[in-house]
This record gives sequence, C-alpha cells and structure tokens, in this order.
Amino acid sequence: MPTDYAFRARLGVSYEEALPLIEAALKVEGFGILTSVDMQATLKAKLGAQFRKYCILGVCNPPLAQKALTQDLEAGLMLPCTIVVYEDDGGSAVSIADPIAVVELLGNPALRPIAEQAQTKLRRVFEVLTGRELRVGQESGSK
Amino acid sequence: MPTDYAFRARLGVSYEEALPLIEAALKVEGFGILTSVDMQATLKAKLGAQFRKYCILGVCNPPLAQKALTQDLEAGLMLPCTIVVYEDDGGSAVSIADPIAVVELLGNPALRPIAEQAQTKLRRVFEVLTGRELRVGQESGSK
Repeated sequence: MPTDYAFRARLGVSYEEALPLIEAALKVEGFGILTSVDMQATLKAKLGAQFRKYCILGVCNPPLAQKALTQDLEAGLMLPCTIVVYEDDGGSAVSIADPIAVVELLGNPALRPIAEQAQTKLRRVFEVLTGRELRVGQESGSK
Repeated sequence: MPTDYAFRARLGVSYEEALPLIEAALKVEGFGILTSVDMQATLKAKLGAQFRKYCILGVCNPPLAQKALTQDLEAGLMLPCTIVVYEDDGGSAVSIADPIAVVELLGNPALRPIAEQAQTKLRRVFEVLTGRELRVGQESGSK
C-alpha cells in the first residue's frame, strides 16, 4: 500500500487516551473537530456487527476552509480533513489524511497552496502526537 | 476543472427543499447521513464571515463501510462518502464525490469492487435527484 496519502503512527497510549490528545494537538494548530463518527457503534447499531474501537474525525481550520471554498465551491467535497483513530494491539493508531494528496483529486491548482498550509499544520499535529509516542519509548511513524 | 471525481447537478428546488430529497434518495440505496456540517453557520460562528448556504454531508452505507474497513483498516480515511449541497442562483446544487475516484487514493485494489458498489448506489441517488430536476424542466448534469 502506498504511504503517501496519510501520516500514520502507533501511539503509546490507549484509544481513550488518544482522542483528547489529538483534539488538544489540533486545537494548537487552529483545527476544531466538526464531526466524529464512532464506527464501532455505527456497525453495531446498523448491522449488529462487532468491530474494534474506531473513530473517524472530520477536522477543520476555519480560515483555511474559507479560503478553499472561496477558490473552489466544490472544495467542500474534500472537507473536513479526515483523521482516523483506532485500537491497535492494545494501544492505538492514528492516520491523518494528507491534505495535498486529497486536494489533488479536485485538479484545481489554486487549492494547492491552501492544502500546503493545511499539511504543514497537520504535520505539526502529527509530530506532537508521535513525539509523545517517542517519549514513551516506541518507534515513530511505523505501521 | 476535471469532472470525473464527482456527480454534480443543479436542482430545480431550493436548498431547504433539496436536503430532505437527498436524504430520502440516499435512504432508498441504504445510505444514512452520519454527519452534516453547515459551513455557512461554521464560518459565521468561527470567523464572523458571510457565506452562502452550504452543507457537507457524510453518508454511509453500513454493509459497504464494513466491507471496506475489513479489507483495509485505513479505508476510514475515505469514509464517510461526501456530498455537498449549496445555494446556487436561487436554486440549489448537489455534488456527490465519486467513491471510485476517492478510493483510488488509497491504492488498494481490494477496495475497488466495494467502491464500484458504492458508486452504483450513489449514481442512482444522483439519477433520482436529477430526474426530479428534469421534471421541472432544467438541464441535467450541468455545472
């Protein structure tokens, strides 16, 4: 599988501990969580199926979202930015979709600099999260 | 701009009328609305900015989502499927992201047949919506 559409890492904390850490790291970079889908609960409720703890977050930096929508009314198809968090081997894992990879789908070069700004911010979020991981003695960036 | 990453059309109804029609057409194809982001309200609340009525829907067909997540744990990065609806020239417009275009980002061929099933269903949603549009005498599929 290619690794260039997301930043991903195992985190040295539980799923329950990961969620507020992610929210706090996002806040520093001006991102709020607009949507949160609990896939475990959704698959249980709709299909009676068992699934691991798994959350899909839709995160948004309002000034960047405004710029993107002003440049291209259809930019909303790639908003909000997506982060998944799930249980993994007793710990947790996070994957942050790379805004540049996602926005390239739209084929509008005017969106590229906005995606670059979003990528810079989300990469910092990722570094904060994986820095924490390093502090607890685990390898960063592995899948 | 390329036109192959979404199905889009102007609808012959207002924004307010479009939303329940879209929800009903989705329901027929087994899709529920998991998330709904009111970008007009979000940009107003966060930036004090004016923006047209604009909604980003995250829609999910639970059996297909389950299949996708079972094939590829990172499929959540491309879930839920995205539909945008907005005010447009006194009427409304809808754009449905093409699941095949979106899933290709992940580069996992096992996801392709699942994306094809999702595309078939969302294309039918689109046809129901644009069929309604045709009945009110407007051109279908235009942008």
